[in-house]
This record gives sequence, C-alpha cells and structure tokens, in this order.
Amino acid sequence: MQNSTQKAILIDGKKIAEEIINDLKKQVLLLANKPSLAIVVVGENKVTEKFILQKQKIAKILDVSIKIYKYSENITTEQLLESLNKIINDTNHDIKNNKENLKNSGIIIQLPLPKHLDSNTILNSLPIETDVDLLSAKAIGNFIVNKNLKIINPPIVGAIKIIFEKYKIDYKNKYIVLVGAGDLVGKPLAIWLLKEKISFSILDKNTLDLNSFLSKADIIISGVGKVKLITGDLIKTGAILIDAGTSEIGQKIIGDVDFNSCIQKASLITPTLGGVGPLTVAMLFKNLMALAKSSK
Amino acid sequence: MQNSTQKAILIDGKKIAEEIINDLKKQVLLLANKPSLAIVVVGENKVTEKFILQKQKIAKILDVSIKIYKYSENITTEQLLESLNKIINDTNHDIKNNKENLKNSGIIIQLPLPKHLDSNTILNSLPIETDVDLLSAKAIGNFIVNKNLKIINPPIVGAIKIIFEKYKIDYKNKYIVLVGAGDLVGKPLAIWLLKEKISFSILDKNTLDLNSFLSKADIIISGVGKVKLITGDLIKTGAILIDAGTSEIGQKIIGDVDFNSCIQKASLITPTLGGVGPLTVAMLFKNLMALAKSSK
Repeated sequence: MQNSTQKAILIDGKKIAEEIINDLKKQVLLLANKPSLAIVVVGENKVTEKFILQKQKIAKILDVSIKIYKYSENITTEQLLESLNKIINDTNHDIKNNKENLKNSGIIIQLPLPKHLDSNTILNSLPIETDVDLLSAKAIGNFIVNKNLKIINPPIVGAIKIIFEKYKIDYKNKYIVLVGAGDLVGKPLAIWLLKEKISFSILDKNTLDLNSFLSKADIIISGVGKVKLITGDLIKTGAILIDAGTSEIGQKIIGDVDFNSCIQKASLITPTLGGVGPLTVAMLFKNLMALAKSSK
Repeated sequence: MQNSTQKAILIDGKKIAEEIINDLKKQVLLLANKPSLAIVVVGENKVTEKFILQKQKIAKILDVSIKIYKYSENITTEQLLESLNKIINDTNHDIKNNKENLKNSGIIIQLPLPKHLDSNTILNSLPIETDVDLLSAKAIGNFIVNKNLKIINPPIVGAIKIIFEKYKIDYKNKYIVLVGAGDLVGKPLAIWLLKEKISFSILDKNTLDLNSFLSKADIIISGVGKVKLITGDLIKTGAILIDAGTSEIGQKIIGDVDFNSCIQKASLITPTLGGVGPLTVAMLFKNLMALAKSSK
C-alpha cells in the first residue's frame, strides 16, 4: 500500500526471487544428482553473516545441501589455498558416500577477504564449474568474450536483467549510470553492458561531478556502500533507481539510496529490503543449478 | 611546424613508438632465444594488409622472425582450429631446428574474421603465453582480475597509458569518454579503467545523445571506424582527442576525428598518421618480448 505522497512503483525483488526459487525447486526434484554449495568465510563480519543466513534459508527450501567453512582472519593465503583444495575434493567425496556422484558443487568465497590475503590467487583457484559467483579470471574472462546466451551470468547481472524484463524497462534506449566499480556490482554490470554494446557511465563516490551525471540518468544502479549517497534532489523525475549497495548501521543493513526522498521523484525504485538482495541470492542458486545440469 | 590557426599540440605516437622499439631492440640482443611472431589472416582486406606491413617492418628492425599464414575466406572453423594447432607447434619446431628452443612465440589472429567463423572458439584456442593481443577469454580474464602491475596490457591500453605518461595527462581527474565498444579499442580500454576505478562513459555511434557527452569530455578516445564522427563543433575547448578509429577511403586509412576542425579547439590531438597506430604496434612487440622473457 502506498501513501498519498509516494510516486514510484516498488520493484518487488522478493516476489520475483520466490518465483525463481519455485521454478528451481521443480528442477532440483528432477535431478538425480542434487547440487551442493560450500561457503568459505574468513573472519567475522555481521553483514556477511546475514547474507549467509539468506543463502541457508534458500538452500533449505530447495533441498540443496550447504556447508559453511569458517576460518580465522589470521589464516595465510597458503593455508586457505590448501583448505580450498580439500573443499573442492571433500564435497564430492561426502556426496559419493551418500551414493550420489556429484561433480558440480558450487563454491562461494565470501568477499571481502582480509587485506593480507592474495584474493586474486584464492579466487582463481576455484574450478570454473564451481564458480557460481564468476569471480575467477577464467569465469569472468569466459563471460566477457562469450556471445553464447546460455552462459551463466554473474549473480548481479542476472538480477538486473530480470528486473529489466519483469518491469519492461527498455534499457537499451536509456541513459544508464553505474555508481561504484566494485567486484560484485559495478564491475560485472559494466562488463555485461560492454558485451551488449550499451552506452553507460560508471562513477565512483569520489567522482568530482557525480551530481551532474545522476541528474541526467534514466537508470541508476548503485553498489557503493555509502549511506544516503543518492538523495531525491540529485535525481531526474521519473528515474529508475536500483540499489545494490550495503552498509551496516547498528543491526541494520541499508543501501546507498535515500528511499524516502527518492520515492517521491523516481518512477521505479527498489525497496530498502526485498529489492536486489533476494534476487542476487536466487540468481546464485540458478547458477548452481545451471552448472550442475551442464556437468551431466 | 604549426600554422597560425593551429592550437592543439600533436601527440607524436611515431616518436614514442621509435623509443619503445629502440629499447626493445637492446632487449632482443640480450635474449638467447629470440621471440618469433605468427600472424594468421583469413580472407582479403586492404586495411589488414597495411597493418601487417607495419608489423613486418618492426619485426625486421627488431630481428624478430615473422610468419604470415594466409587462409581463404571460405575456411571453416574446424579447419582453422586445426591449422592453428599446427602453427602453435610448428613455430616451436622450426625454431628448434635452428637450435633455439623457443617456447613463447606470439600469435596474432587478425580481426575481423569472416562472420561464418566462430571467433570465440578460435581466439580461445590461443595459449595464454602466445596471446600478445589479449583476446582469449583466459588472457582478458587474467587482465581484469589481476592487480599485478607487471601483467601485460592489451596493446591499445599500453598505447594510451604511455600517451598519458609522456604528455603528463592527469587522466584520473578528467572526464573520459570512450566512443565505440569494439574488441580492439573500446572494450579493453573500458576494462582497464574499471580496474583502476576511474570514472568514464562509453558510447557508441548510435548513442542518441552522443553530442552532449562529447561536449563535456576532457578526454575523448574514439575507436569506431566512422569518418568525421567527431568534429570541432562537438568538443569542448581544450579537450584531448585520441583517435584509434580506422576507416578505409580509397587507398587511405583515416580515423574517426575530423582533424582540421578539431585541431583548432583541442589542447592535444593525435595526428591522422603517426598517432595511436604505431604505438599499438610497438606495444604488441613489447608484449611479445615480455612473454618471451617470462617463459625463461
């Protein structure tokens, strides 16, 4: 229910995510070899913990087994690589003991890793057929050059694509502004737009002239992690606002977009909760399923 | 010598390229195993032929052996893959006969390939240690994720970086506009800027609002292949114009930038000949050398 001052339509990511999960559930039932998911966590982080809880919830619905591997933040790159190597093999081994010969378990390495670790080498150690996040050089390279539409997308790309589809957003003829060039949001989205030869601008919270870009954007997708970076006075009337940023304030996870001021001016907007987040998680499981199927 | 109406300083790509080649020549002299370069050409194309001539000229200066493999435009993907496989092995074999055990010959597949061929599969068949153009999924993926500064750059990225360096262009604080998202210019440059977290806009010749972006750009890098796409009336006074576009008009290869009108308004501009072209070729040989050295 919208109150009288609200203008924008809410993007119901939660509902679309539920549809995807329902569809995946039917697919899992048909699979002889159920996929399983390993999540690697280094150190303590409240935001990360919430994301893991969401993944566990979906895994339970789908009847997909999930294992969390937690490591101290003092672990070295070599130790983590050794553990990862075991995880890649262990997972298959456990499943084999249950008489299921699973070759395609997904592995997620929760980012960010502590700064002393060599993230590149760690992410690149993931076999491409387990890399549901597309964070290894091989997986992202494959994504860039491959024009095959059947290839899996980085989860954020899958999430944005389905938002554009469900809300009939003619994104090819809109001015798209990406805010933030991080590994999980801005970078994969930029690569997708490059592939599709769609014009866009990519900015950072430090861009001097941020406001002049925001005020002209038809579509803004933000993934910076800076509270109230985007306020209603900065956007164009009728803009589409998609918030993929996350900051932790006390117990709450909040985005980059100041929802209350932006909803008055935008035409479409993601809500503070139930927007991009659940969709990205659903897309991760969609990737897990696609990899499991393609390994048959 | 500039005439009285000229304002912009010319970017002397030819001179910088000569410096790079001179430096590489010294390095080749020190190598026990000289690198060699194979160029694969499918079909007839006058622009391609001119580019190959440039490469042959540099190879001769550097005393690097170069082989051109020409195929009919009717070749199938399977046939070309088979030939490529032979080229990868042949090159090493020939060198071995000359008592040089070269493991790191570079291979260039001249683009564009005829449309019936599966470019992805063909480019991806190149071993990463031969891919001087960084066009395979593995090479470009490695480039994206790797923060190691020693990694080789796509030739156009190397060319633009050295222009920025030599002309002391503070590109991190300028508004950069890339025109065109092709595999050889726009896409690798966009990926480099993404890596460096530098704000930019990427446009195409079909972008509805092209002029409004061009008029605000501090730096324009164009690689579309459309004659006179960028004219003086469209740019900001003092803009930096780098033209990496190529169109064939009669016997001439010309760029995207209308030089005569833009030179009046720009602060720095690449000339019609001797700008980005020779630098890109020099960077290709720099990559060949880097790969040869790293294989020792």
